[in-house]
Amino acid sequence: MTLPGAPLAGLRIIEVSSFVAAPLGGMTLAQLGAEVIRVDPIGGAPDTTRWPLAPNGASLYWAGLNKGKRSVTLDFRSPDGQRAVADLVAESGPDGGILLTNAGYPWLSPEVLKARRPDLILLRITGRHDGTPAVDYTVNAGIGFPLTTGDGDRHGPVNHVLPAWDVACGLYAAVGLLAAERRRRRTGAGSVITLPLEDVALAVTGHLGFLAEAQLTGRNRPRIGNHLYGGFARDFRTRDDAAVLVVTLTKPHFADLARVTGRAETLAAVEKALGADFAVDNDRYEHREVIAALLAPWFAGHTADEVAGALRDTSVLWERYRTFAELAADPGTLASSLVSLIDQPGIGRILATGTPLAMEGAGAGPQPAPVLGADTEAVLNELRGQ
Amino acid sequence: MTLPGAPLAGLRIIEVSSFVAAPLGGMTLAQLGAEVIRVDPIGGAPDTTRWPLAPNGASLYWAGLNKGKRSVTLDFRSPDGQRAVADLVAESGPDGGILLTNAGYPWLSPEVLKARRPDLILLRITGRHDGTPAVDYTVNAGIGFPLTTGDGDRHGPVNHVLPAWDVACGLYAAVGLLAAERRRRRTGAGSVITLPLEDVALAVTGHLGFLAEAQLTGRNRPRIGNHLYGGFARDFRTRDDAAVLVVTLTKPHFADLARVTGRAETLAAVEKALGADFAVDNDRYEHREVIAALLAPWFAGHTADEVAGALRDTSVLWERYRTFAELAADPGTLASSLVSLIDQPGIGRILATGTPLAMEGAGAGPQPAPVLGADTEAVLNELRGQ
Repeated sequence: MTLPGAPLAGLRIIEVSSFVAAPLGGMTLAQLGAEVIRVDPIGGAPDTTRWPLAPNGASLYWAGLNKGKRSVTLDFRSPDGQRAVADLVAESGPDGGILLTNAGYPWLSPEVLKARRPDLILLRITGRHDGTPAVDYTVNAGIGFPLTTGDGDRHGPVNHVLPAWDVACGLYAAVGLLAAERRRRRTGAGSVITLPLEDVALAVTGHLGFLAEAQLTGRNRPRIGNHLYGGFARDFRTRDDAAVLVVTLTKPHFADLARVTGRAETLAAVEKALGADFAVDNDRYEHREVIAALLAPWFAGHTADEVAGALRDTSVLWERYRTFAELAADPGTLASSLVSLIDQPGIGRILATGTPLAMEGAGAGPQPAPVLGADTEAVLNELRGQ
Repeated sequence: MTLPGAPLAGLRIIEVSSFVAAPLGGMTLAQLGAEVIRVDPIGGAPDTTRWPLAPNGASLYWAGLNKGKRSVTLDFRSPDGQRAVADLVAESGPDGGILLTNAGYPWLSPEVLKARRPDLILLRITGRHDGTPAVDYTVNAGIGFPLTTGDGDRHGPVNHVLPAWDVACGLYAAVGLLAAERRRRRTGAGSVITLPLEDVALAVTGHLGFLAEAQLTGRNRPRIGNHLYGGFARDFRTRDDAAVLVVTLTKPHFADLARVTGRAETLAAVEKALGADFAVDNDRYEHREVIAALLAPWFAGHTADEVAGALRDTSVLWERYRTFAELAADPGTLASSLVSLIDQPGIGRILATGTPLAMEGAGAGPQPAPVLGADTEAVLNELRGQ
C-alpha cells in the first residue's frame, strides 16, 4: 500500500484506537503514504459496529476511518497478546516505534514501552485534561457553541452533526506525530504526547477569539441564526423552495449583490437614511435584517437555477444548500479527483475520499479499509523477520 | 520565540495569508516551535479588522490566529516589495524555503519560486478544486450538514458557528507541510501542494461515512434535533432551567443512567413490552423518544447541581451546556495549563490558548501575536546576513 515516492514513505505507525479522532489521525498519515497498522482486540473495538451502517449492517463509519491501513487482531486479555502488541510497537523498525492510541492499557504505558524502545513516540488521545472520559458531544456542550447556534428566539442548545472536535483532534494528532518524528530524526529523542479532546476544543475556541471576546465584554456572543457575525451573509429561499447562501466579505461583493438583485438604488437610499456605510462590514452587520428584508423578494421571485445564473459571474460568494443525498448523487462529486468508487470488502462499491492534500506521491486515490484482522499473520511474520 | 528543545525548532516558514485556515496552519506549527514569519501588505491583509473585536476596536480574531509569529510588512504593489517577499522564501535557510499561503500572486507562483529554490515547499490553500473562491460558510452549505442540523420539524438550513472546515483546513495544512518537510529531509525533493477548502470538507464528509450512506441508501440522514444518530444521547432541561447533555455509548452507560434517574424498572418493562433490547445501540436509537420522555421528569425535578452530583460517580458521559461567557468566567478555564492571560500589544490582558499537544518542549504557553510589521527590519537584516 505504501508507494516509495509518497510523502511519508517508510514511516510506520501502530494504532490502537477506536471511534473518530485516533482512527482519523492514523488514516490522515496513511493517505500520505505511511504504513499504519491498526491493532484491535479479537472481534474488534467498540467502533466496529458504529453507525452509519450499510444496508447489510456493516459499519460505513469503520470503513471510512480506516482506509489504507493494515489490520491486526490480537487477544488483548492474554499476557501473550498484550506482549505481542508491545512487540509490534517496539520492533517496527527504525522508522517505527510510534504508537497512536486513545486507549489507556497499562501494558501499553509509556514506561513499559520506553523500557523496550527509548526513542518511542507515543501519542495518546484522552477525553479531558484530567484523564476522565469525554466525547465530542460532551466537549461541545461545555465549550459554548450549541447555545450560540440557531435562531435568536431559540432557548435551548443546538448540537452539531459534524463531530468537529473529533476531526480537529485527529488532525492535531497527525501534526503531533510528524512533529515528534522530525525531532527524533534530528536529535534521536522520542516523545510522549498527550492530546485531550477537551483541550483541542478549548485551544481552537481560544484561537478564534471566542474566549477573549467573552472575557473582555463579559457577554455571550448573540445568537443570530444563519447570519454571519460581523458582516453580511445569510440564507435566502428561492421561488422553487431551495435555500441559497450568499456571503459578502468585501465592498465589491456587496455592490455586486445589490446590483444583481436590482436593489442598488434602494440600498443606497436606505444607507443614507440610516447614516450607514454598507461598504463597511460593521454597518452591514448592524443593519443585516433591513438588508436581508430588501433582498429576500428577489430570491423569492426566482428559481434556484435563475439565482445561480445571476450570481455566477459576479464576485459574490454563494452556494446552494444541498443534502447529503444530493451531494452523493451529484455527478460532480464522483468527478472530483478526491472521490472514487472503491470495492470495500464486506460492503461493496462505495464512494470514498482520499486526502485533500494534492501533492506528488499522494495521488493514488482512496484505498479500502482492511477486513478486520486480515493482516495479522503477514504483519507478525514481517516484523519477526526484522 | 523558538526554543532549542521545541519539537519544530529550526523550522522556518513564510506565511502570506489571511482569514482562518492559513493563519491557523502557521500558528499550529509556531506553537510547536517553528519560526513562522507572517508577511503582509503594508496596512495588513483583509483579516486585520475582522470580528470579534476588543472593546477598543482591535481584532481579537487576528490576535488569536497569529500568536507566536513574527510580522513583516512589505509593499506588495511594487516590484521591489514583491521581490523582497520572494527573497524571504528563497533565502530563509536550509530549514526554510517553505511558503504557506492562501494568496494567488503571480510573483509568488511555484515557477517563480522554484527557479530560485529548487527544493521549495509551497502549500497553497484555495477555495474550490477548480481554483474559484469559496469560504467556510459556502462550503458548508454545499456539503450537507446545515440541512441535517437542528430540530426535525425545521425546514431550512442551520449554519454552524464554529468555522469547522477552516479549522480542519488549517490543520491539514500543518500536516501537509510537515509531511513535505520529511520527504525533503529524506530525499532532497521539494513539494508543491494544493489544498482546496472544498476538498477538505468533502474528504472529511467521506471519511465519516456520510457520503457512502447517502449513496447506498439514496436517502438523506434524518434530522433528529439534539439526538445522537445510532445511539442514545440528548439534552435535558433541569429544574433551574439549565441544559444538560447525557451520552450513553455502552450498556453500562445506559444502565447507570436508568438507575440514577430511578427508571431502571420502568425502562425494563417498556423494553419488554416493545420487544427491544436497550443494551444495544440500535434499539436505544429506535426508541429514543420513549426513553427521553421517561427520563425527562427526573431532570426537570432536579437542579443542575443535583444532576451533576448524581451523575458524577457513574459511567454516564455528561456535560452541562455553557455559554462562551460562562466558559470564560469559569476559574477552571484559566486554571488549565493550556490557557494563560497574556499581554497582547494593542489590546491588553487577554485569555489565550496554547497548543493542545502536551509534549516536551511545547509547554511555554501561548505567546502574543506580533504588532503588524514589528519584525520587518529585524527579519530582513537577519536573512540578508545568511
